[in-house]
Amino acid sequence: MDRNPLVFEIDAEHGMARSGYLRTSHGVIETPAFVAVGTQGTVKSLAPETVIATGTQVLFANTYHLYLRPGQRVIADHGGLHRFMNWQRPLMTDSGGFQVFSLGAGIEHGIGKIASIFPGEEDTQTNEEGDSLKDRSMVSIEEEGVRFISHIDGSEHLFTPEGSIIVQRDLGADIILAFDECTSPLHEKDYTRASAERTHRWADRCLEAFEATIPRHGYPQALFGVVQGGAYRDTREYSAKIIGKKGFDGIAIGGNLGRTRQDMYRILEWTIPYLPADLPRHLLGIGDVSSIFEAVERGVDTFDCVSPTRNARNGGVLVRFDKGVKLRNFRLNLRNARFANDLAPLEQGCSCYTCQHFTRAYIRHLFRAKEQLAHQLASIHNLNFMARLMSEIRSSLKEGRFGVLKEEWLTFE
Amino acid sequence: MDRNPLVFEIDAEHGMARSGYLRTSHGVIETPAFVAVGTQGTVKSLAPETVIATGTQVLFANTYHLYLRPGQRVIADHGGLHRFMNWQRPLMTDSGGFQVFSLGAGIEHGIGKIASIFPGEEDTQTNEEGDSLKDRSMVSIEEEGVRFISHIDGSEHLFTPEGSIIVQRDLGADIILAFDECTSPLHEKDYTRASAERTHRWADRCLEAFEATIPRHGYPQALFGVVQGGAYRDTREYSAKIIGKKGFDGIAIGGNLGRTRQDMYRILEWTIPYLPADLPRHLLGIGDVSSIFEAVERGVDTFDCVSPTRNARNGGVLVRFDKGVKLRNFRLNLRNARFANDLAPLEQGCSCYTCQHFTRAYIRHLFRAKEQLAHQLASIHNLNFMARLMSEIRSSLKEGRFGVLKEEWLTFE
Repeated sequence: MDRNPLVFEIDAEHGMARSGYLRTSHGVIETPAFVAVGTQGTVKSLAPETVIATGTQVLFANTYHLYLRPGQRVIADHGGLHRFMNWQRPLMTDSGGFQVFSLGAGIEHGIGKIASIFPGEEDTQTNEEGDSLKDRSMVSIEEEGVRFISHIDGSEHLFTPEGSIIVQRDLGADIILAFDECTSPLHEKDYTRASAERTHRWADRCLEAFEATIPRHGYPQALFGVVQGGAYRDTREYSAKIIGKKGFDGIAIGGNLGRTRQDMYRILEWTIPYLPADLPRHLLGIGDVSSIFEAVERGVDTFDCVSPTRNARNGGVLVRFDKGVKLRNFRLNLRNARFANDLAPLEQGCSCYTCQHFTRAYIRHLFRAKEQLAHQLASIHNLNFMARLMSEIRSSLKEGRFGVLKEEWLTFE
Repeated sequence: MDRNPLVFEIDAEHGMARSGYLRTSHGVIETPAFVAVGTQGTVKSLAPETVIATGTQVLFANTYHLYLRPGQRVIADHGGLHRFMNWQRPLMTDSGGFQVFSLGAGIEHGIGKIASIFPGEEDTQTNEEGDSLKDRSMVSIEEEGVRFISHIDGSEHLFTPEGSIIVQRDLGADIILAFDECTSPLHEKDYTRASAERTHRWADRCLEAFEATIPRHGYPQALFGVVQGGAYRDTREYSAKIIGKKGFDGIAIGGNLGRTRQDMYRILEWTIPYLPADLPRHLLGIGDVSSIFEAVERGVDTFDCVSPTRNARNGGVLVRFDKGVKLRNFRLNLRNARFANDLAPLEQGCSCYTCQHFTRAYIRHLFRAKEQLAHQLASIHNLNFMARLMSEIRSSLKEGRFGVLKEEWLTFE
C-alpha cells in the first residue's frame, strides 16, 4: 500500500512504552496523546478554539451519529468534517462498529460495553450521548453487516464494512477505523471467537473498499484495523496476529477489555506484542489516569474517552492534589456543599483558562443554577488536565524517567 | 450629593435623541448602548471573554436571583460580582423590584409583565430564567417591602428598599437600581397611582440607605431611580417629575409599558421630557430593533433585554437581510428545515466569530442534536448584531443622520 497517509516517528522508548510523532495532513499529534471526543461534530459545550486552548491535539467523532444526523452528505458538501465543525487539526472517526454492540449486544444482555469493569467508572466507555438503549431493538448482526433502527427517527439502516468506509470517506477524518463488532463481557468464548473472525473478514472488506476509493477532500486518510477477541487470551492473541498483518496504517484495540483494570492490562499484554512495532496503537474508550499510565507502559500511543468531558458536565473535576492531599480518584465533585464558599481555583497552580479566572464557589454556583457555562469551564479544565498529563508522560519518556513519573502519580500514602 | 460615581457626557443630539459616554469605574459605556443580561452572574452559555468579543459593553445582573443563589455574601467575599463572574467592565444590577411584579401581580393576574403587548414577542420582557410562576404564592406587598417565598427552596424572605441597597452594595455593580414595584397592564389606574406613590417613598428610602452606606469594594456605585406610573399619562408624568427631582445618578423607566409598541412610544414621550436632560436614561426590558430606534429617538440611552440571548437559545437568529431580502422581524428560525443544507453564514457579511467560522447547516445540526455549542454560537451572533446596531445608531447620531439610518432599518417594501 503506497498511500502514506501518515508518518509515525518514535523518538523514545521505555520497555514497550514509546513517545513520538504522528504526522497527519492536518498536523502532528505528539504521542502518547489523549483524543477528546466530539461525538456529534462538537466537543460538547466547547467552541473549537476553546478546545485548542486546552492543549487538545486531536478529536474523535462518531460515524454512527453523524451518519444519522445530519447525514454525511451535508458534511461532505462542506468539504468534510474538519470544515463542518471548524476543526483544522487532526481528526479521527470510529466506524460505527461500537454501535453494533451498543445497539445489539447491549440490549441483549442489558448492559453497556464494560458496564461492570471499573466500579464507579461506568461512564468511561459508554458513548458520549449517553443514549438510552431502551428503544433500540430490531438490531441484527449478519455477515453482510448490521441492520438497525435509528434511535432518532425509527428508520431502518444497514451498516456494512463498505458502507462505513464510504461514510468515513465523506466525513474525511485523518484517521478512520475499520468496521468491527464489539463483543460484550457477557459473550462466551465461542461467540467471541466467531465474532472476531467475522471482524477479520470485515477488515478485509474495509481494506478493499478503502483501496477502491479515493479521499474525497483532497488529502489522504489513514485506516486503522481493530483488534477484538474479548477477554480471552487466545482469541485476543489470534485477533492481534491477524489484524496486525493486514497492512493497516495503525491498530486500534477495542471490544470487551475485561471486568477490572487488571484484566485490561493483561489484555494489552497479550495483544500488543503481536502488533507491528512501527504502527501507532490506539486504545478505544479508555481515559482514566491509572489506565493511561498502565496502557502507555504496555505500548499504547493514543486514547479516546468521553469521561473527562462527561464528568465535567456532571461537576466532576480532574484534580491531582486538593489542599496538598493526593486524590486517589483524581476527582472532586464540585456540587459538594463544601465548595460553596471556596475561593480557590479548581486546581492550585493550574494554568487553564478556568483556573486563571474563576473560583470553585463561582463554578459550583453555575452548576447549581444550571448554567451552561459550568459545563464549559469544567470541560476546559478537564481537557487541560488530560493534555498536561499526556505532556508530562511524553517528557518523562523522552527523558527516561517514565517509571518515576508513573510512581509519583499512582502512589498514595 | 458628592458621590460622582459616573460621568455622563453627551456629544451629539438629534431632537430628543443623543449619543455620549457614560464613564464608570469599570470603563466607559458608549451610548446609546445595549446591555446584555446575565441574570445569574453569567450571560447564558458564554464565557466573559466571548461576550467582550461580541462588542458588548455592559451587563445587567439580577439581584433577586443572586440574593437567593448563591447569596450576596459569597459574592462580596470575592470582592463583588465583577470578580465573581470575571467581568471587569461596566455592570448593572436591578433592585429585585421586577420580581415584586413577577412574583406578585404576575400570579394575581396570571400573566407576565407585558405578556400581551407585542404579539409574538412575549419573551422580550420576561426574566431570563423563564422561571415558572406556578409555585410562587404567598407574596405580599407591604409598605415595609415585599414578602415572598423563594422559588428555589421555599424559604420566606422580605425585600425592602434598604435591603435591596445593602445587597446591591455587596454585589458592587457600577450602576444599581432603586427598589420599585412594577405594576401590570391589568392594574387599574387607582392602584397604579397608589403603587407609584409607594415606589416614590421607597425611592427616598433607597437614597437614604445609599447615602448611609459606603461602597464595599473600593469603587463608587451609581444609583438610578425608577419611573413607574403604568400606561396612564398623568401617573407617568407624575412619577417622572417626582423621580426626576430626587437626585438620582440616572433614571430607569420601568413597569407596564402598555399593550402595543405605540403605547410604549407614547409613554416615553410623556415621561422623558420631565427627566433631567443631563442624566442617563435606561429603558428596562426592551431590546427589539424597532423599539430601540423609536426609544432612542425619544431620548433613551441604554436598554437591557433578554431577547437576543434567549431567542438565540431557541434558534432565533437576528438577521437584517436574508438573501438580499429585508426581514421585517429581523429574525430567522434556524430550526427550519430549509437551512439543513445551507452553507452560508448566519448573516452575509457579518464579522462575528460564528459567521466567520460556521455555516447555517452546522449550527442547525447543533440545535437538532441538542448541542450546547448551538446556544453559544447563536448567542455570539445575536449579541454581535445588537452591538453593531447600537454602534450604527451612535455613528448616525454623531454624523447627524439618525433619521436616515432609522428609515433604512425600519422601512420595508
